[in-house]
Amino acid sequence: MKIGGKPYRTIWLSGDGRTVEIIDQTKLPHQFTVAQLKTMADAAAAIADMLVRGAPLIGATAAYGMALAMAEDATDEGLNSAYATLMAARPTAVNLRWALDEMKSLLVPLPPQDRQAAAYVRAAEIAEEDVGICSSIGEHGKALIEAAWEKKGRKDPVNVLTHCNAGWLATVDWGTALAPIYKAHDAGVPVHVWVDETRPRNQGASLTSWELGQHGVPHTLIVDNVGGHLMQHGRVDLCIVGTDRTTAAGDVCNKIGTYLKALAAKDNGVPFYVALPGPTIDWTIEDGVRDIPIEERDATEVTEMTGVSADGTVCAVRISPLGTRAANYAFDVTPSRLVTGLITERGVSKASQAGLAELYREKAS
Amino acid sequence: MKIGGKPYRTIWLSGDGRTVEIIDQTKLPHQFTVAQLKTMADAAAAIADMLVRGAPLIGATAAYGMALAMAEDATDEGLNSAYATLMAARPTAVNLRWALDEMKSLLVPLPPQDRQAAAYVRAAEIAEEDVGICSSIGEHGKALIEAAWEKKGRKDPVNVLTHCNAGWLATVDWGTALAPIYKAHDAGVPVHVWVDETRPRNQGASLTSWELGQHGVPHTLIVDNVGGHLMQHGRVDLCIVGTDRTTAAGDVCNKIGTYLKALAAKDNGVPFYVALPGPTIDWTIEDGVRDIPIEERDATEVTEMTGVSADGTVCAVRISPLGTRAANYAFDVTPSRLVTGLITERGVSKASQAGLAELYREKAS
Repeated sequence: MKIGGKPYRTIWLSGDGRTVEIIDQTKLPHQFTVAQLKTMADAAAAIADMLVRGAPLIGATAAYGMALAMAEDATDEGLNSAYATLMAARPTAVNLRWALDEMKSLLVPLPPQDRQAAAYVRAAEIAEEDVGICSSIGEHGKALIEAAWEKKGRKDPVNVLTHCNAGWLATVDWGTALAPIYKAHDAGVPVHVWVDETRPRNQGASLTSWELGQHGVPHTLIVDNVGGHLMQHGRVDLCIVGTDRTTAAGDVCNKIGTYLKALAAKDNGVPFYVALPGPTIDWTIEDGVRDIPIEERDATEVTEMTGVSADGTVCAVRISPLGTRAANYAFDVTPSRLVTGLITERGVSKASQAGLAELYREKAS
Repeated sequence: MKIGGKPYRTIWLSGDGRTVEIIDQTKLPHQFTVAQLKTMADAAAAIADMLVRGAPLIGATAAYGMALAMAEDATDEGLNSAYATLMAARPTAVNLRWALDEMKSLLVPLPPQDRQAAAYVRAAEIAEEDVGICSSIGEHGKALIEAAWEKKGRKDPVNVLTHCNAGWLATVDWGTALAPIYKAHDAGVPVHVWVDETRPRNQGASLTSWELGQHGVPHTLIVDNVGGHLMQHGRVDLCIVGTDRTTAAGDVCNKIGTYLKALAAKDNGVPFYVALPGPTIDWTIEDGVRDIPIEERDATEVTEMTGVSADGTVCAVRISPLGTRAANYAFDVTPSRLVTGLITERGVSKASQAGLAELYREKAS
């Protein structure tokens, strides 16, 4: 997608054919900075310190981390050590493990002198595969936005509400929930996005606003409390959100607050879609509300807020009384009965066992 | 209610029998400051600059403002001028007009030399009447909390979720939505409050947390996105919120985001109560979603956040990209079908025309 009119991805190989470059997302939205990953250790640090975030992007960064490792030390020892270091960078990230296993199983059988070249090729493929998946999600979702536009008589922009950041910054390009929006916008379908700020970490206010603004997609930032009111008054045509994990029965685990928006959509007859790559489906769980554990994070994310002060410095301020106890649940689960459809790289399915099984026959056996 | 163990109201007559004292609420929660109102102009400024807020407290402050005016100049000219100045301090506040009309109709027929004494007496009565109304709301609501405690077998605290600040800081004492909580707590019923932070103005994080903390009521601050998740998991026994205006049919206009919590309560079988003084009922409107106009406020309330920085100074930080457009709707309307009951000073009624008419026969004709 574009930044200031220039096309970018979140990760790419620099001109020297060896160094990897990324957007340092810890600096967004207040500063746009490209960081160079010159060593495997740089890649591990970028993952651990969240310069890169989002499951697909973490996977691609880990793959390039293995390529950088092979450029430094292509012995078995170097390979095993890089695998361990990168895995430890963010141990709970499923895509991280997948990408590292993919790289390791490719590299182990090769003679050391062939490993560097093969690693760079496979890392580029992993990145490219993610772009392909997100682009397909975008095409399938674009059709829904186009249909909404037809329904409005091709007058007025289609108003899409989204929660959190499931945009291209969380992937290599296109994003998941935002991919349909970019595809529609690029195809000339007028789209306007209501961006939930997404407390407590404000990924909507900081990342979604920023990436939509840079690409030139009209949008309006709102606090998380507003979506219901907008839906009551016909100001939202459809909702599209991402997901961290969706069960085989179509229950959707996503950023805290998603469930409240799905309730409002149901109450007002607004279609509620979830965009997801097939690998996000957890085929082992059915009842998401009962069985998906919800991460509790540090309370300071609730009691403090980071932004730019009047003198231009980025700083945190405490917004609650000193000593106030806060609870910080990171995700919630939206039951499938509230979800209109799942937008995958293979098409749009019902949020149900039957719907998903039809698209992913090989998994649903 | 108590601040640091000492009983306070939000407004009181000081020892000299003339000066009025208030809590400067613009400084909360980071600083507890008592401000002195020595003149009518001080009272007008306190209202205009929001040192006092909340409809009942604004009314009481205006009444004392008239008393201060009579101490300065008890002529007809002084009376009319004070009335105009105080009315202009916050022209849309319904309670402000009510209190000023009340004072004026009392004072006009009196000879100037009797006006000061009469004004102080009536201002004190107006404050006392508000305390009485809120205390009654508290008693009726306390019974609901006690019933919830019985239902739990008198084990574990009753978990009450509230949105925004309808606490004693918005009234003279007790509050509306928080009155039942204070009454239950003071009576030894264990209560724990989930405090919605209430973006964008954060009245929950800053005021509700503060007043509950000062009075010693256990509470946990959460972002507005969390309530649905808590209700899905049985962590909320009942919701109690306040209201700015409730229609004759029981539709509830309250701080933006209230509707989303009411939807979650309905979806999970959690009782959803609204606490309100009778005068808050608008007998002229039935369909609240259609007919109550929703105020739009300045976008900087969304894009900026105020708090205490590391060096102890209170400052605002910008949390979204420069130039991001934001929309700021201040209220939403919860349809009566989502409201379990209305807690008034006359008892608890169904949120319906019939329910309200039974309690307020003289109004509902």
